[in-house]
Amino acid sequence: MTKRSRAGRLRIHVENDPHHAEVYHITPALFARRVRRSPGLAGRIAITYGQNLLDAPLAESEVVVVSNVDGTGLAERAPRLRWVQATSAGVEKLAPTLPDSLLLTNASGVHGPKAGEYAMTALLMLNHRVPHYVTAQRAGRWDQAFATPIAGKTVLILGVGAIGSAAARLARGFGLRILGVSRSGKANPLVDRMYKPAALRRALPQADFVLVTLPLTAETRGLVGRTELDLLPRHAGIVNLGRGPVIDNDALADKLRRGELSGAVLDVFPEEPLPASSPLWTVPNLIISPHCAADDSTSYAERALDIFVGNLERYLAGRRLVNVVDKTLGY
Amino acid sequence: MTKRSRAGRLRIHVENDPHHAEVYHITPALFARRVRRSPGLAGRIAITYGQNLLDAPLAESEVVVVSNVDGTGLAERAPRLRWVQATSAGVEKLAPTLPDSLLLTNASGVHGPKAGEYAMTALLMLNHRVPHYVTAQRAGRWDQAFATPIAGKTVLILGVGAIGSAAARLARGFGLRILGVSRSGKANPLVDRMYKPAALRRALPQADFVLVTLPLTAETRGLVGRTELDLLPRHAGIVNLGRGPVIDNDALADKLRRGELSGAVLDVFPEEPLPASSPLWTVPNLIISPHCAADDSTSYAERALDIFVGNLERYLAGRRLVNVVDKTLGY
Repeated sequence: MTKRSRAGRLRIHVENDPHHAEVYHITPALFARRVRRSPGLAGRIAITYGQNLLDAPLAESEVVVVSNVDGTGLAERAPRLRWVQATSAGVEKLAPTLPDSLLLTNASGVHGPKAGEYAMTALLMLNHRVPHYVTAQRAGRWDQAFATPIAGKTVLILGVGAIGSAAARLARGFGLRILGVSRSGKANPLVDRMYKPAALRRALPQADFVLVTLPLTAETRGLVGRTELDLLPRHAGIVNLGRGPVIDNDALADKLRRGELSGAVLDVFPEEPLPASSPLWTVPNLIISPHCAADDSTSYAERALDIFVGNLERYLAGRRLVNVVDKTLGY
Repeated sequence: MTKRSRAGRLRIHVENDPHHAEVYHITPALFARRVRRSPGLAGRIAITYGQNLLDAPLAESEVVVVSNVDGTGLAERAPRLRWVQATSAGVEKLAPTLPDSLLLTNASGVHGPKAGEYAMTALLMLNHRVPHYVTAQRAGRWDQAFATPIAGKTVLILGVGAIGSAAARLARGFGLRILGVSRSGKANPLVDRMYKPAALRRALPQADFVLVTLPLTAETRGLVGRTELDLLPRHAGIVNLGRGPVIDNDALADKLRRGELSGAVLDVFPEEPLPASSPLWTVPNLIISPHCAADDSTSYAERALDIFVGNLERYLAGRRLVNVVDKTLGY
């Protein structure tokens, strides 16, 4: 794994999408600061930066660092390319466009403590009827709705990865019972009971809250559809911090309008930014946060860079990388 | 303290305000169930119920249980009255209308775990820019605002009583630094540093969040005015779960409109219900909850009754009551 470019340095190309908020940008200054903490990299890497893959100096690049963009043509334009590091956890746009021969790693874990904290915030908001209050406020209406403490209630976490685990840890502190769904369904010390996806319909009726942190894959698209939402108790609420298309938002909106669920907090949408014309903006008991729940304004890029630099050291040492994406599974 | 009515039983009159939500009502069924757990009371009390003090059978009553209403004329109409138990924690309407000779106790502590949990919810909402999101949502606007985790930030709690302490306990779990203000300013194991009210202006500039849980008294009315709000950092947010007139809401609204504070969550207002004509409904970055933050939909009346029955046993035994209100201080 340590084949070097002609000048003896590993050629790395870093892309920063100009349409992305600056909190995501891996700038030359940030990279230089980070590399100083890894003296083993000195003199072994050569980095170029760009804002648009089409114009990038890719002919010599062996490594590309890029956000979750469409990577069509990348392999052709970068004949020496062997490894693509995504700066995002989700890679549903990037992964299907890369050839099988390319190594793809993601930034799972980048969201760190913030995403779990926002998940807990959203669960508390649902428990304390905040979606009801802000809906009544939009109408200038004083409409009391009382709640009970969250302790003893049940949260069902779909996707117990980095964010789901951080949320589970906080939820335990509030005395919640925790159910989880993962592809393997294997036991998790943070979760009272794990289910496989095939058993989702047995788990849903037990949930006071559902927390979705799933990536978007062929298996998760539309996983929470009308039938699944119908299995939730009427008082239940749902949070989506994963990817928009995992939930059937039309079905969710219908149920919220009919009062068949108590509330929802959505941070992700099939189309982002959510268009001004979307009917979701005014659905009762639905709170929209604009895909910022998981990302930390001061440390996102640093955390993504930490994941990349750790992998870079492994790559140069010929060791196995972390966060390798299974392109068939899509995460 | 154990003078008995003619029939040898202590005459107690319980008022339930029909304009109050049912979660507050101490019904005959509830009382009967509670008394069964205190066999010492059997045969020693006689209870009447009413919905309007003016029509109540008060001539024989030695004890009145009532919410935070205007008690003008009560003492005259109940010549044997010695003790008034309020079913609320705040007694700003009731206390000034009772003669000094009457013993008044309140239901401080009735809010139990729920109020602290809602306080923590509100602090997390402020930290995670939820007021910003719901304001943008009202305009159908996708407007990202990123945050950092709450750990290491500072909350200033005004009034470290039952609710303030419950909030402090949860806030410690999230790694918050906790400052407090109380009348005595005396040390509190849950609080990193306590201040007296006179030092409020030194505490405010340190606060990322202010949590108000104060009762309404002559000292607390208008305590958080324009000058005090101006001492907060621009990124700070404020929560009021105490009593509306503690904060100058006109000044608060001005600052929120000018973006000089990041958000507010208000559960209490000078006039409740908040009138439909109030300008507060549409103030940016302000979330309104309709005075339900502290009250538990399943256990409020039971908790209030627990406090009363505990005092009743003390009263019959000639012991000192808990939650005795200092009518001069107003709480």
